[in-house]
Amino acid sequence: MDIKFLYDNHDTLKEQKVTIIGRVRSNRQGKVVSFMVLNDGTVLNDLQVVYKPETIGFEDGSKARVSSIVEIEGILVPTPSRPQPFEINATSIVLLDQAVEEYPLQKKEHSPEFLREISHLRARTKTFQAIFRIRSTAAFAIHKFFQENNYVYVTTPVITSNDAEGAGEQFVVTVNEDKDYANDFFGKKASLTVSGQLNGESFAQAFKNIYTFGPTFRAENSHTTKHASEFWMIEPEVAFADINENIQLMQDMLKSVVGYVLEKNMTELEFLQEQLEPGLIDKITGIVNAQFKVNTYEDVLKTLQNAIDKGHKFEENNIYFGLDLGTEHERFICEEINKCPTFVINYPKDIKSFYMKQNDDGKTVAAVDLLVPGIGELCGGSEREANLDKILQRCEFYGINPEELDWYIGLRKYGFYKSAGFGLGFERLIMYITGASNIRDVIPFPRTPKSLLY
Amino acid sequence: MDIKFLYDNHDTLKEQKVTIIGRVRSNRQGKVVSFMVLNDGTVLNDLQVVYKPETIGFEDGSKARVSSIVEIEGILVPTPSRPQPFEINATSIVLLDQAVEEYPLQKKEHSPEFLREISHLRARTKTFQAIFRIRSTAAFAIHKFFQENNYVYVTTPVITSNDAEGAGEQFVVTVNEDKDYANDFFGKKASLTVSGQLNGESFAQAFKNIYTFGPTFRAENSHTTKHASEFWMIEPEVAFADINENIQLMQDMLKSVVGYVLEKNMTELEFLQEQLEPGLIDKITGIVNAQFKVNTYEDVLKTLQNAIDKGHKFEENNIYFGLDLGTEHERFICEEINKCPTFVINYPKDIKSFYMKQNDDGKTVAAVDLLVPGIGELCGGSEREANLDKILQRCEFYGINPEELDWYIGLRKYGFYKSAGFGLGFERLIMYITGASNIRDVIPFPRTPKSLLY
Repeated sequence: MDIKFLYDNHDTLKEQKVTIIGRVRSNRQGKVVSFMVLNDGTVLNDLQVVYKPETIGFEDGSKARVSSIVEIEGILVPTPSRPQPFEINATSIVLLDQAVEEYPLQKKEHSPEFLREISHLRARTKTFQAIFRIRSTAAFAIHKFFQENNYVYVTTPVITSNDAEGAGEQFVVTVNEDKDYANDFFGKKASLTVSGQLNGESFAQAFKNIYTFGPTFRAENSHTTKHASEFWMIEPEVAFADINENIQLMQDMLKSVVGYVLEKNMTELEFLQEQLEPGLIDKITGIVNAQFKVNTYEDVLKTLQNAIDKGHKFEENNIYFGLDLGTEHERFICEEINKCPTFVINYPKDIKSFYMKQNDDGKTVAAVDLLVPGIGELCGGSEREANLDKILQRCEFYGINPEELDWYIGLRKYGFYKSAGFGLGFERLIMYITGASNIRDVIPFPRTPKSLLY
Repeated sequence: MDIKFLYDNHDTLKEQKVTIIGRVRSNRQGKVVSFMVLNDGTVLNDLQVVYKPETIGFEDGSKARVSSIVEIEGILVPTPSRPQPFEINATSIVLLDQAVEEYPLQKKEHSPEFLREISHLRARTKTFQAIFRIRSTAAFAIHKFFQENNYVYVTTPVITSNDAEGAGEQFVVTVNEDKDYANDFFGKKASLTVSGQLNGESFAQAFKNIYTFGPTFRAENSHTTKHASEFWMIEPEVAFADINENIQLMQDMLKSVVGYVLEKNMTELEFLQEQLEPGLIDKITGIVNAQFKVNTYEDVLKTLQNAIDKGHKFEENNIYFGLDLGTEHERFICEEINKCPTFVINYPKDIKSFYMKQNDDGKTVAAVDLLVPGIGELCGGSEREANLDKILQRCEFYGINPEELDWYIGLRKYGFYKSAGFGLGFERLIMYITGASNIRDVIPFPRTPKSLLY
């Protein structure tokens, strides 16, 4: 039996004999009775075990250190007056494996910084159990949403020869390390992907609805709480779809994923609400129930200018067409003005990517960012440029050699009528859902500049 | 509407007006009526459209080349006497985007070799639509199986500093390409992972049940039909579990995944059975219904020797304790002798990995490979060595510096009582389920030595 089984069935198991293997979280001897708190990771809750000198194996049990593994046989007893609904009166204890005294996770609180240094152990703490279980649930919720809507999951390649996308600095993948790429493993320069989007788009032309979900990489020397060198992205793409359908998809996906986590992980959310972010559950429940708004970029500029005229101070008060909105602007729009998640559409073409569809106004593209309260931009997407000449113009503008992406650009020659998609940084979503404030704390083994542990 | 919607609802839609956007597969003019075959990728089946000179847009429609995108308005008409259950009598055709004449996928058959050169387009062919849709379904089925059984999905890192596992040659990840690792991005040598197992094991100590599902890499100059430089692995790990529970898990997982594909993708399987492998559906249905057998390695040796004594010829007829079984031996055991999927357990310790649990006989380890008819080894796993001294002995034997893996080996100090898991190469499973004979044909964008396209 595992501890989840006891929690799921304690009503029918009361006064029954149960057997459990678990890890000792604490163990203290009283004069009459002793208490051992166990966890086995199958559920966030601990199991309280009561044992006495007459319990078989009392000697071994009373020696069991924190993190040791014990097997308990005992009777499940309801405890309606206590916080936990039941406990185990042990009839026997077997010490299966004794932990050393120097186990780094003793009962006291540890700083997130210390725990990051022991990422192979920190998932044993309740906070990280909660975070990583939610990460797992959310990953599944994403697959479930897309699969139920007939999207094909495409695993786009990690090793790529595309280096013209401009999404960020790339790592080189090599066996020779001598920059002689013709003689390297692939016979050409190979890098770690920054995005699966372009590959995904080619598959959307085959399946109409596809999504990617895999690791992406940035070789950027960023030391912020929001950037990691390795992180996971979700990139859906839909052929024959425009920006409005893209907006609808973002909203549907986000509500579905957050709703599924609320359904499956309320225990974890309640714990994290207490530990990391007051109001967390209301915040994410708000996403599920909200009617999202849509604003144009130019309307957002007007709103920001109005606020400034009325005395509001941003760090960046110079509002002009072409401004890349900062997080302060994004949060102001969705938190102070709209008070709900907000799509901003039709950004200036020169601050967005070469593949985005140019609008008829000649100055904006059919791009969309989703801004959410508490974080700002959560995901971004666009309708793609279908016109071959127009996309070639944008390549020229950005200094992209179209020959390096001829396979991608050339899709427009083989029947191409609208395509739209977006990218969601998975860790950013998990930070939002769990209240974790550092991306290093939502990745099992985070990779950042000068840090590569385990 | 998409074409899947028409197939799912053609009974209720009969004689109704429908509107469809699709890609032209073929277009031929008759004297009285013309026929256009469309596909939109939402379902394997095509849609037949009948149009006539009086159809609005007839001129444009009759010019539409293969791969062009058209919008059709028309009446859905049942065709009970034909292979397809219905067709569309077009009332109007709009040519949304005309394809160039040089579209590489014209109606004729193409070789797999040619199609591998255009992996950004080949998913538009029916064979690859079937394969990649099954790949997507199977990926989801894996997540579904583990999530429903309370396993936590752990995304183990792609970039790693572990280089002592011995699972295969590794790619180097660098920004400087000068072998001065102290001044490189991570301040130490970084590689692409060959397995998430060790990281996964540390999380199994936290959650009891975990699984990984992500890309892994081999910098090996293999030019076989079964090896790729980048492929996906599933690596579950269960704490407090022994080899018998591992065997049960492999069997349950495989039956669940294959069963789900049979439930969701019968159209695709029927198509692939016709195109790639006669008897495919019976073969995989056999997996779902089979009672798997368990043989020890030593019993397998006896069986092989018996067969040789009776005149059976293998390419390798020298059967001895320590032999690494070849595919011919594996297939002989499960196809000729057991006639069912077979677990082989208790391999010689010196041909298996350092982390596998040593059995009491002093010569074997608690390893298990699953052999299936038609392919041989499908997955392999083991119970892990729990004893610190014993694992250190095996490190010494293999020349592994234990300090490089002290975090992993040291897990045994912090309460460690049994752990077991296995690895399944996802592409090998997809080859088995789809009948594809080359790993390059089950990966959207395959990476192999000297080949890095798109």
